[in-house]
Amino acid sequence: MDRLTPALAKAAEAANRALADLMPKLEGPERRVVEAMTYATLNGGKRLRPFLVLCSASLFDVPRARALRVAAAAEYVHCYSLVHDDLPAMDDDDLRRGKPTTHIAFDEATAVLAGDGLLTLAFEVLGHEATHPDARVRADLVVALARAIGAEGMVGGQMFDLAAESMKLGLADITRLQAMKTGALFRFACEAGAILGQAPEDARAALRDYARDLGLAFQIADDLLDHEGTVEETGKAVGKDAAAGKGTFVSLLGAEEARRRARALADDAAAHVARFGAKAELLKDVARFVVERRA
Amino acid sequence: MDRLTPALAKAAEAANRALADLMPKLEGPERRVVEAMTYATLNGGKRLRPFLVLCSASLFDVPRARALRVAAAAEYVHCYSLVHDDLPAMDDDDLRRGKPTTHIAFDEATAVLAGDGLLTLAFEVLGHEATHPDARVRADLVVALARAIGAEGMVGGQMFDLAAESMKLGLADITRLQAMKTGALFRFACEAGAILGQAPEDARAALRDYARDLGLAFQIADDLLDHEGTVEETGKAVGKDAAAGKGTFVSLLGAEEARRRARALADDAAAHVARFGAKAELLKDVARFVVERRA
Repeated sequence: MDRLTPALAKAAEAANRALADLMPKLEGPERRVVEAMTYATLNGGKRLRPFLVLCSASLFDVPRARALRVAAAAEYVHCYSLVHDDLPAMDDDDLRRGKPTTHIAFDEATAVLAGDGLLTLAFEVLGHEATHPDARVRADLVVALARAIGAEGMVGGQMFDLAAESMKLGLADITRLQAMKTGALFRFACEAGAILGQAPEDARAALRDYARDLGLAFQIADDLLDHEGTVEETGKAVGKDAAAGKGTFVSLLGAEEARRRARALADDAAAHVARFGAKAELLKDVARFVVERRA
Repeated sequence: MDRLTPALAKAAEAANRALADLMPKLEGPERRVVEAMTYATLNGGKRLRPFLVLCSASLFDVPRARALRVAAAAEYVHCYSLVHDDLPAMDDDDLRRGKPTTHIAFDEATAVLAGDGLLTLAFEVLGHEATHPDARVRADLVVALARAIGAEGMVGGQMFDLAAESMKLGLADITRLQAMKTGALFRFACEAGAILGQAPEDARAALRDYARDLGLAFQIADDLLDHEGTVEETGKAVGKDAAAGKGTFVSLLGAEEARRRARALADDAAAHVARFGAKAELLKDVARFVVERRA
């Protein structure tokens, strides 16, 4: 982890700068929505999705300024999804990374709008010519992101999760749910570097495979944290899933088997990117990291 | 109006088909979000924004299949904004076009997600190569839409509106508010045809000017309807602005002067597109229509 920790920190710092720089600058009463968008974004997150964009882009020697724009777009989307998921009508969470959620710090209406604004901003950033001189790349990024986070991806996964509260889900259902809800945005983040680098289809496919296994490992680790972690460690409420009687990887498999599977998936993820040689070391490291993290 | 009425009906029919065709087809519990997206979209709306896209595209002989995709994207955005605006935390409206609003017909969480899904779908449709073979056009449409509806446009206008509830707004403030809240999406709809047609900048500017005056005329007419209309005519609650003590064009100008200004703006709008000759007749008609409509 000696190599990963400073790399993560450096990428997070660069991502934070990009996230702040790309935020609209407004005067007048409407600046409140940008304040809420900023609050929701500049929140000390790990910036895992930006890191994945930067790592995948570096495989194809994509100029860093371009990769950082796409990294910011992916993180805007992640932050929008958290703001809307935390709303009273959704998961009703007051705490996120140890701080009041956006609808608590502002109000519900502002939180809805801040999420809408972040989602829209992500597409504006991708479409802008500073992201790539070739418009086909920009349009490709727009479509890839939209597919990952719309009704067939993240939004559908969130709907699945809400609709499934009264259902008994098996392992296949939960795997599909998580692939939509959290996996699809990971897939975009990992594939984005290949799109930016105009890499051949087999390289794109390898990164999608990597992302699929990484995303599932990440989610199993999340369930383990919800099962074993503390509020102090995770900065959010824990044990909610069990209290809600929701099926999770841990409730279905037991903690030990869940941890074993998460580690096996991290190994599988690493194997998918072995083809890229030494350039893929950080991607391999991060696969292990998502399984072993404590928050 | 003899020419406009059948043209509006024909365009609405084509737009409705496109809106249905482009909707994701899902199985599993997540299909509920597509049901809500469909409910929110296929609601008997006038399809004014699609009509503006189709009319502006016809100025430049854009193939109709392309224009219909952009028309659908603009309407998805309009419908998403209505779903989120109607939420209890926002305007708290139970009725829209005489039917229960989406969060009443489904539930609040589903309405939030349906709005998010529609917004995302709009960008997916624009970015897809079926919208235009030249990717620069697609990226241009994505950026133009995002700017129109983000924090600097529609979302900012909605924030302005909410934040201004405790403020005394003058005519300049309300004009700026409405230009953001409703005008910006009209501007996109009118400019989209020129983008699709790869028209020169002066043609784009003429359509933006048309849209600015049309949008303001539309909003003044909306205030007049809220002031004078009935629930039966408009299909939604009326008199809410006055009851909330909100400044409107009618409260600031009086109904008579407001109506005079709306008509003058419609004339100005028509003048901006006179340069396009006979091809612009429907755009001129629609400018008069938005002022004289009763719903």
